[in-house]
Amino acid sequence: VTTSVEDPVDKERHSPSELREAWLVLSPMERAEGLRMLERTEAEDLFFEVDAADQADFLLLMPQADRRSWIRMLEPDDAADVIQASPYEQREGLLNLLDVKTRMEVTALLAYAEDDAGGLMNPRYARVRPDMTVDEAISYLRKQARERLMSIGEVYALDAEQHLLGVVSFPELFTAQTDKKVRDVMHPPTVTALEQMDQEALSNLFAQHDLLVVPVVDAKGCMKGIVTVDDIVHVVRQEATEDIQKFGGMEALDMPYLRINIGTMIKKRAGWLSALFLGEMLTATAMTYFEEEIARAVVLALFVPLIISSGGNAGSQASTLVVRAMALGELRLRDWFIVIRRELPSGLALGSVLGSIGFLRIFVWHFFTPIYGEHYMLVAMTVSASLVGVVLFGSLAGAMLPLVLKRLGFDPASASAPFVATLVDVTGLIIYFTVASVILYGTLL
Amino acid sequence: VTTSVEDPVDKERHSPSELREAWLVLSPMERAEGLRMLERTEAEDLFFEVDAADQADFLLLMPQADRRSWIRMLEPDDAADVIQASPYEQREGLLNLLDVKTRMEVTALLAYAEDDAGGLMNPRYARVRPDMTVDEAISYLRKQARERLMSIGEVYALDAEQHLLGVVSFPELFTAQTDKKVRDVMHPPTVTALEQMDQEALSNLFAQHDLLVVPVVDAKGCMKGIVTVDDIVHVVRQEATEDIQKFGGMEALDMPYLRINIGTMIKKRAGWLSALFLGEMLTATAMTYFEEEIARAVVLALFVPLIISSGGNAGSQASTLVVRAMALGELRLRDWFIVIRRELPSGLALGSVLGSIGFLRIFVWHFFTPIYGEHYMLVAMTVSASLVGVVLFGSLAGAMLPLVLKRLGFDPASASAPFVATLVDVTGLIIYFTVASVILYGTLL
Repeated sequence: VTTSVEDPVDKERHSPSELREAWLVLSPMERAEGLRMLERTEAEDLFFEVDAADQADFLLLMPQADRRSWIRMLEPDDAADVIQASPYEQREGLLNLLDVKTRMEVTALLAYAEDDAGGLMNPRYARVRPDMTVDEAISYLRKQARERLMSIGEVYALDAEQHLLGVVSFPELFTAQTDKKVRDVMHPPTVTALEQMDQEALSNLFAQHDLLVVPVVDAKGCMKGIVTVDDIVHVVRQEATEDIQKFGGMEALDMPYLRINIGTMIKKRAGWLSALFLGEMLTATAMTYFEEEIARAVVLALFVPLIISSGGNAGSQASTLVVRAMALGELRLRDWFIVIRRELPSGLALGSVLGSIGFLRIFVWHFFTPIYGEHYMLVAMTVSASLVGVVLFGSLAGAMLPLVLKRLGFDPASASAPFVATLVDVTGLIIYFTVASVILYGTLL
Repeated sequence: VTTSVEDPVDKERHSPSELREAWLVLSPMERAEGLRMLERTEAEDLFFEVDAADQADFLLLMPQADRRSWIRMLEPDDAADVIQASPYEQREGLLNLLDVKTRMEVTALLAYAEDDAGGLMNPRYARVRPDMTVDEAISYLRKQARERLMSIGEVYALDAEQHLLGVVSFPELFTAQTDKKVRDVMHPPTVTALEQMDQEALSNLFAQHDLLVVPVVDAKGCMKGIVTVDDIVHVVRQEATEDIQKFGGMEALDMPYLRINIGTMIKKRAGWLSALFLGEMLTATAMTYFEEEIARAVVLALFVPLIISSGGNAGSQASTLVVRAMALGELRLRDWFIVIRRELPSGLALGSVLGSIGFLRIFVWHFFTPIYGEHYMLVAMTVSASLVGVVLFGSLAGAMLPLVLKRLGFDPASASAPFVATLVDVTGLIIYFTVASVILYGTLL
């Protein structure tokens, strides 16, 4: 029977959807292999879908002779990304595969920082002169259509020095009277971005104005390119990922979790983890300072984790809220006083909730077990008063830390839950043992 | 001198940019007031910029007679958002201000869940029949241009039953030979979304395929509307905000930090904070269990915060990575074993780094202070061995928690840094005191 003999081609060939499914767990070699097995059009679809790092891997794994036709399919901004994602020594070679015009555009793009408006923009866009008639503009654009200039819906009217004078949408242009001048149907651009604009500010601009595309201009108002909203979707996702990872107490990985090399990932995690550990060592120092109190009243040690973690949790909530509000452009440095005015009552209220639960717990437990001793009421008061203080301090410190970091020129997103917790732990211990020495003086201490 | 007399109009009138600046800290009344002071076109620009909740506030604060002209400026999907953001008893009234056709569309949209593809889509889009000639299609579309159908760049070819047969871009249509049939220039839609598709899946679809617009169809392939990428930018930002806030250990606020009512915010924070507190109470129970050891060797108590927080921090890193990878669609439930294979070596390596630092610290300190006693080497070994165990456990628990939550039908983003820390704290205490009882048996214990 022939079915028992394995067909070597069938064995290796994956469907595009199988390949897409398995993509993240495949090695670059396996991916290149998989893509080669697909039909050209299927392979092209997948090639356009994956990110620049994968495209670079794929290009570099194929024979020199095949690279040209693949890299030339990319728009200049995408080609620039692929070249930026390639090892330094391969960049020149990839650049030389492009046609002269694209190579010049890509070289210009490579001069921008990757996360500036300039680094995100596409230098190809539909341009007309304001003194063309609508009819002339349409037939001029039709000739350019091959370059997919028009898929984004706007045409830009420039003078001879490339100053951006006006914008007209395709529907406006195509439905205007054909003998009118472009000047008469265009309108001034509502929003433009400077080429150095940071990608986070750029994404706030897109969100605020519901933009599909924004023209990028230099300081003199000369048009440089366009940034389209599909790139902004990637920016927003990437910025959120960076913030979330920083917020988890590490460096941003800049790569999918399943793809990053384990050694690199450990390095990115070890830095912050060690720094936090060194900071947290202060708790051991603080505890040493209160060693005598602990020896006299071991019952105090029992609540140490409970109290300091509550401060850390309250701080983590507050810093999360402030970091995110700052990233979305809702909150600026000078709003710090409004933040204090919100966190002061919140911290007091939250501290009172936890303080009451803590008080009840010790009070109720006392009827079942003798562990809290004869002075259980005083212990309960110590714990609940400390909780109010620690949660209040945690909320204020957590809310202020991102603002302080920003003021000092650091990324506010570094005010991570673990960072805040570390900061609050030491203070929490001091608050707790100070409250204890006041309330328990003459009884347990 | 007239300048000393304050002009009452000048005093109240703000420029659009001043109003935009101050927007977040103004009350709804002040906003409505500010908007009324602007020229109509300036006010309209600002009205289109703000979110649906603000638009609803503004509409409801103006006289009944003025509302109609404002709400009718909105596209059906935006009008639906405004109505959804209004108090229940006002919705009928606002709906009745719309023209009959829009009212029907909005009513249909209101039936969808807000965060489904159906709830995000615009039911107005450019449609043609496949058997029109290109010339007929263009003049048909020109007549519809008034409704801004065409700003998004794609035309959809439907049969009489509204089945989606093909897509053609405006540039393709306008540059085609005018006597060809639409059927000959259209191509099958590369991607469509089902009307029930969740907005997070939808935003992954947009990112993966670099889409500007996606047609929404029902189970029978009938076209329902389009979702445009500018809405997706909002979705991505909103989903990231929700995840980040959950990750900080609270419910998502669903409102900007500076705008949410303090009482509501406290409620959203108190729930998780109390739950975490109740969980953390287990540390007090665990500590009680080891009370005797602490009494015999108070030095052990000194390192409790250091050790449990290190486990929490390692866990927070791991859960952050896994939660984010799941949200981006990079990681699925069935990949759990790959995750373990990555976290096992990472946890061991990170634990060893912290263990070594901890060992060195106690060893070096011993030469300056006698606090660690004669058995300082054994104490150092206890602390560093515990750190390896706690960090390894933290990494594994942090990485698995989001997967377990997902499996149980909860949101993986609830695996917040504070949640993981609480989970790891109790186990960390048990690991620490168990290691201590083995290493210090016969000496300190």
